[in-house]
Amino acid sequence: MMLSFAKMHGLGNDFMVVDGVTQPIFLNESQIIKLGDRHRGVGFDQLLLIEPPQQPDLDFQYRIFNADGSEVEQCGNGARCIARFVRNVGLTWKHKIRVGTMKGVLNLQIMRNGLVSVDMGEPRLEPGDIPLRYAQKELFYHVNLDGIDYQFGSVSMGNPHCVLTVDNVDETDVDKIGRQLTEHHLFPEGTNVGFMQKVSDSEIRLRVYERGVGETQACGTGACASAVIGRLQHQMENKIRVYLPGGHLHIDWGGVGETLKMMGPAELVYQGFIEL
Amino acid sequence: MMLSFAKMHGLGNDFMVVDGVTQPIFLNESQIIKLGDRHRGVGFDQLLLIEPPQQPDLDFQYRIFNADGSEVEQCGNGARCIARFVRNVGLTWKHKIRVGTMKGVLNLQIMRNGLVSVDMGEPRLEPGDIPLRYAQKELFYHVNLDGIDYQFGSVSMGNPHCVLTVDNVDETDVDKIGRQLTEHHLFPEGTNVGFMQKVSDSEIRLRVYERGVGETQACGTGACASAVIGRLQHQMENKIRVYLPGGHLHIDWGGVGETLKMMGPAELVYQGFIEL
Repeated sequence: MMLSFAKMHGLGNDFMVVDGVTQPIFLNESQIIKLGDRHRGVGFDQLLLIEPPQQPDLDFQYRIFNADGSEVEQCGNGARCIARFVRNVGLTWKHKIRVGTMKGVLNLQIMRNGLVSVDMGEPRLEPGDIPLRYAQKELFYHVNLDGIDYQFGSVSMGNPHCVLTVDNVDETDVDKIGRQLTEHHLFPEGTNVGFMQKVSDSEIRLRVYERGVGETQACGTGACASAVIGRLQHQMENKIRVYLPGGHLHIDWGGVGETLKMMGPAELVYQGFIEL
Repeated sequence: MMLSFAKMHGLGNDFMVVDGVTQPIFLNESQIIKLGDRHRGVGFDQLLLIEPPQQPDLDFQYRIFNADGSEVEQCGNGARCIARFVRNVGLTWKHKIRVGTMKGVLNLQIMRNGLVSVDMGEPRLEPGDIPLRYAQKELFYHVNLDGIDYQFGSVSMGNPHCVLTVDNVDETDVDKIGRQLTEHHLFPEGTNVGFMQKVSDSEIRLRVYERGVGETQACGTGACASAVIGRLQHQMENKIRVYLPGGHLHIDWGGVGETLKMMGPAELVYQGFIEL
């Protein structure tokens, strides 16, 4: 069959987006791996599949697959692309869209400036929720690596994050410290590691070492985590602009007990047709 | 403007192919670099641009650009894709196609089995034509690397090649020997380095270290060079099947004074539309 798709990206995190509402799609693992090949297929970081809603209060269901064929739970950059896609192809004319995922409901909003806002839910700060092996919640946690004491903050944005404040992200050994922390026994399920530099009360420069991946261009949940820790540890403002190597995101968080909103771009690269 | 294109590959060497006959295309370097980005663009090893013929005896003109925007002379895997493309999109109904390139005329033929045959012209064996710094043409040349004497054959297929015969390509240090030879002063313009294992009188296993690139999955001109050297040094047959990591090619060469034909696959991956 001929499959229609779009290639999109959010800050360089790239996606093959497939409308599974008007096209009956059943992709198996070997087909996803073949599509994910950057030389013999389409190539992508993740494949995003939009399906009809499974509950009456939802607009769509949204599934995410890595290029190795495995299904994953969460992708902030992908969620923004989903919102732009369903409007671009005319699957909806709404500006506020509710999509179901493996992890629950995502609320997306297309703004007047074309950016997309994603309600990321409430940041979870309890060690057991992250999960982090610490007796109780602290503003500053401590870890010793090679005889040096590091302070960090920690939060779950649906996935675990550890955030260190540094003087200059350009001079930080992200690979070395990131690798050590991501596998540290304090984090029983591993962690993403963010290195944030506070630029002003409303601006952060950030580099993220992603669990199982290494340093990436633009980790959406990492940007959220850095804004949460920046607000709690450094009394930063509600609205924070986070500069990542791949571009910047706007984070809006009122504080503990509030949900967090992440706003950023979603770009169409091209539309394609492939014979499956 | 909206640009229509095809994504194709030949043994994993992948191309964005653009019809510049029915679409008026003027791509500058920065546009090619943007299109070549595998995350924010289409992504390709080379962009192939088909233009109207510049002489009455030609069917098309064919230009090749690397992902860094530079224009290059020759690409055997790309030539096969060009032949399939012009027939697929209905630019011609011929099976034999003559295309003009920077380096002269290429004769392409689409076979009944769907494979494409490319007339690669006469292999050039004179040292001055390769270019190789040797006083006269030899069947076996010699070079000393780290105190070890290596025998090799050498030929130009439009680009310089050095071919070593080994017992087992899987056990050969292609990176180390390849890098040393590609920069050796014997080759004033550098060279591609092939490591061939003779499997039978009509079969070769081949790995190629490409000048300026490193080891690749499927070097078309390298396959031609190995068949030439196999026939001259090891009395192999006219028709040779060359197994590369990315797949296999058929080479047909009658001997000195004859032109060489390379036959292999060209696959359509998808068709796309992108806003420039």
